[in-house]
Amino acid sequence: MSIDVVNDIIARKRDGGQLDETRLNAFVTGVVDGSIPAYQASALLMAIVLRGFSPDETLGLARAMVESGKVLDLSVLGRPVLDKHSSGGVGDKVTLVLAPLVAACGALFGKMSARGLGHTGGTLDKLESIPGFRVQLSQGDFLRQLERIGVAVVSQSERLVPADRILYALRDVTATVDSEGLIAASIMAKKIASGTSAVVLDLTVGAGAFMKTVEQAASLGALCRLIGESYGRKVTCIYTSMEAPLGHNVGNRLEVEEAWEVLCGGGPDDVREVVLTLAAALLALSDLGVDEREGRARAQRALATGQAAEWFERWVAVQGGRFKPGEFHRLAGNEVTAGRDGWVSSVDARAVGRAAQLSGAGRGRADDEVDPAAGVVVSAKPGDAVTAGQSLACVYARRREARAAAARLLGDAFVIADQPPVPGPIVLGRD
Amino acid sequence: MSIDVVNDIIARKRDGGQLDETRLNAFVTGVVDGSIPAYQASALLMAIVLRGFSPDETLGLARAMVESGKVLDLSVLGRPVLDKHSSGGVGDKVTLVLAPLVAACGALFGKMSARGLGHTGGTLDKLESIPGFRVQLSQGDFLRQLERIGVAVVSQSERLVPADRILYALRDVTATVDSEGLIAASIMAKKIASGTSAVVLDLTVGAGAFMKTVEQAASLGALCRLIGESYGRKVTCIYTSMEAPLGHNVGNRLEVEEAWEVLCGGGPDDVREVVLTLAAALLALSDLGVDEREGRARAQRALATGQAAEWFERWVAVQGGRFKPGEFHRLAGNEVTAGRDGWVSSVDARAVGRAAQLSGAGRGRADDEVDPAAGVVVSAKPGDAVTAGQSLACVYARRREARAAAARLLGDAFVIADQPPVPGPIVLGRD
Repeated sequence: MSIDVVNDIIARKRDGGQLDETRLNAFVTGVVDGSIPAYQASALLMAIVLRGFSPDETLGLARAMVESGKVLDLSVLGRPVLDKHSSGGVGDKVTLVLAPLVAACGALFGKMSARGLGHTGGTLDKLESIPGFRVQLSQGDFLRQLERIGVAVVSQSERLVPADRILYALRDVTATVDSEGLIAASIMAKKIASGTSAVVLDLTVGAGAFMKTVEQAASLGALCRLIGESYGRKVTCIYTSMEAPLGHNVGNRLEVEEAWEVLCGGGPDDVREVVLTLAAALLALSDLGVDEREGRARAQRALATGQAAEWFERWVAVQGGRFKPGEFHRLAGNEVTAGRDGWVSSVDARAVGRAAQLSGAGRGRADDEVDPAAGVVVSAKPGDAVTAGQSLACVYARRREARAAAARLLGDAFVIADQPPVPGPIVLGRD
Repeated sequence: MSIDVVNDIIARKRDGGQLDETRLNAFVTGVVDGSIPAYQASALLMAIVLRGFSPDETLGLARAMVESGKVLDLSVLGRPVLDKHSSGGVGDKVTLVLAPLVAACGALFGKMSARGLGHTGGTLDKLESIPGFRVQLSQGDFLRQLERIGVAVVSQSERLVPADRILYALRDVTATVDSEGLIAASIMAKKIASGTSAVVLDLTVGAGAFMKTVEQAASLGALCRLIGESYGRKVTCIYTSMEAPLGHNVGNRLEVEEAWEVLCGGGPDDVREVVLTLAAALLALSDLGVDEREGRARAQRALATGQAAEWFERWVAVQGGRFKPGEFHRLAGNEVTAGRDGWVSSVDARAVGRAAQLSGAGRGRADDEVDPAAGVVVSAKPGDAVTAGQSLACVYARRREARAAAARLLGDAFVIADQPPVPGPIVLGRD
């Protein structure tokens, strides 16, 4: 790719022009083969962030990204493979429950996950907090496992959508993450390339999420559906609230523990509600011939009967994990207590996330190690009545200084009021 | 400089915020010491182009750029050193005449020039088309030459404003050249660092220039004056028309030949008028105690009496050049002729510039060689009456294919109309 040709592409977007498929392909190809240097790519990314990216351009970029690498063909399974994606939140352990639950209900759930940055690790880190759990599976093993037990969650092959890894790393350090089009293309190119038949997007909204309004989430969702449907894939969007952390536990192994409670028919209401909503949507997209109502009823049954928990144990064992309920021992913890009587009116998910990251549960850099046992347990959630001195949360960390620093952050996350807050729904809408 | 700190600076500008001196210094320092990678710098540059750059930011950037390297102190000379800068045009040989002319009138003209990209080479390439001419002078030699003959034009030391070289090279390949603030900071940081006391800016306007209106030029000029005056330097802005090429000759040695004609009291009216206007403005900024009217009269006299031409010969000889008027032999040329009778209503400077570049006179890449003898001579200028078959221009190049390709481009540069055009002034205004 000649420097001048790329310069012209950048100038076109700088001046508010549209990038056609030819230019988007040239850009993605050049990024992957290294002929477009990072400094040209980042200038174009910034121009896209500030000038905008039309639905046609988003679709064109997604297509170019899919074609930048290998594309899996899961049709040998003869059945649709379901997947979900979350736009991210604090305490989001939904996949840990949803994957075996959907499989327990008779559908296939196959997920290829990338390792992200953030407050806590991603789904892969959460699974790896179970001793022995292997996320590196060959494509053949991935297919065989799906055939055998209907569920597999593995790390994404480097050969799928190589453009996304390069562009994402660049966006992360050039303040160019915030573009709906770039986000939609990144999410969906990976889903298309990994052979997913149908996907449910959990689009989080609120203080602890990337998107602040349902309208923003709906706009991103519409772009994702446009891309998915252009490849004949089904896409359902669920908008969920991410003001406070989801559930109580934030941290890799802590979230596995809480997921287990939900799988056993208990656990926090908000996690359970999100899981059931997503499971219903996924089962309705499967080949089971059920609508969402019936899907939800089946999922409820699988949780209540212990079938889902059993499926989780089988799944973990097949991927090499040694999971025994109640076996996990928490690290030393620092409590944060209420300064007064009242009702918890809000818990700032971002502050809780930062505290979890400080505790060692998350990574700031791609090569940081995460501590599987570190994290935060939020015991008082919005709407809970508390009395002065009562524990609101506890932060668990290996190092005393990290515990103290995280606890200070955590103290500011809680607002206690004289009146109970007006409760809001956890599921805000769907498309 | 940490990746995250830079990311925050980029995000600030992306969101339309202001960059204060601390942030601008951190950016420039990091660019020069290599701790800020090019991909972060280019993302910030694009955000600046699209979000804008305030006068305060422009001043802050210029200051940071000046401080990024060595700053020359010319005060040992005990007299003000004058300089000029042009925002660029096709056939712009003004410096070749102005430098010895100002010295012949008794003032000091010292210029440090960088080698640019473009249709023809820069002033350094034009001077180097004279056999033996040396542009690499030590700082001591530069000062001694100024003392001795009042004129020196040399290549800029790499130790002055290193930030500009890095940023300019990056802007050139990331479509981020077009920012008034970045341009003003780049121009003026170099002038300040090279110790100039007073500068006249020749801000070109029109189809063949970067700026299309006098308002744009005035806005750039005001920023340059703001920077210059903050360092106690005098700045005069002259706005000149760059619709058609300046003069007839476009190409390095061809321009030296035409400059010589002007120095001898002849030459094209437009070149002469720009030279006299700039000389008058410079002499009025010197320590000669003359106003512009008197300055212009002295400059006219120096051209008419042969004093300026004599000074040019001395200057060239002192810098090692062997210049004999009329000694230059043109390369083989391809003529472009008029297809019909009429008046030349316009000559597209950009097309002439591209033809000159194709002929070998300019460089597309920093490491391209320029051909000193190549170029274009435009014989018919706007307002000239022509008859079908009459020569309009001739392109000179070493290779036959380059001549043919350049001649084709050149053919489209001329518009011939039934009526003579309304003549416009070459000098459009001043501030």
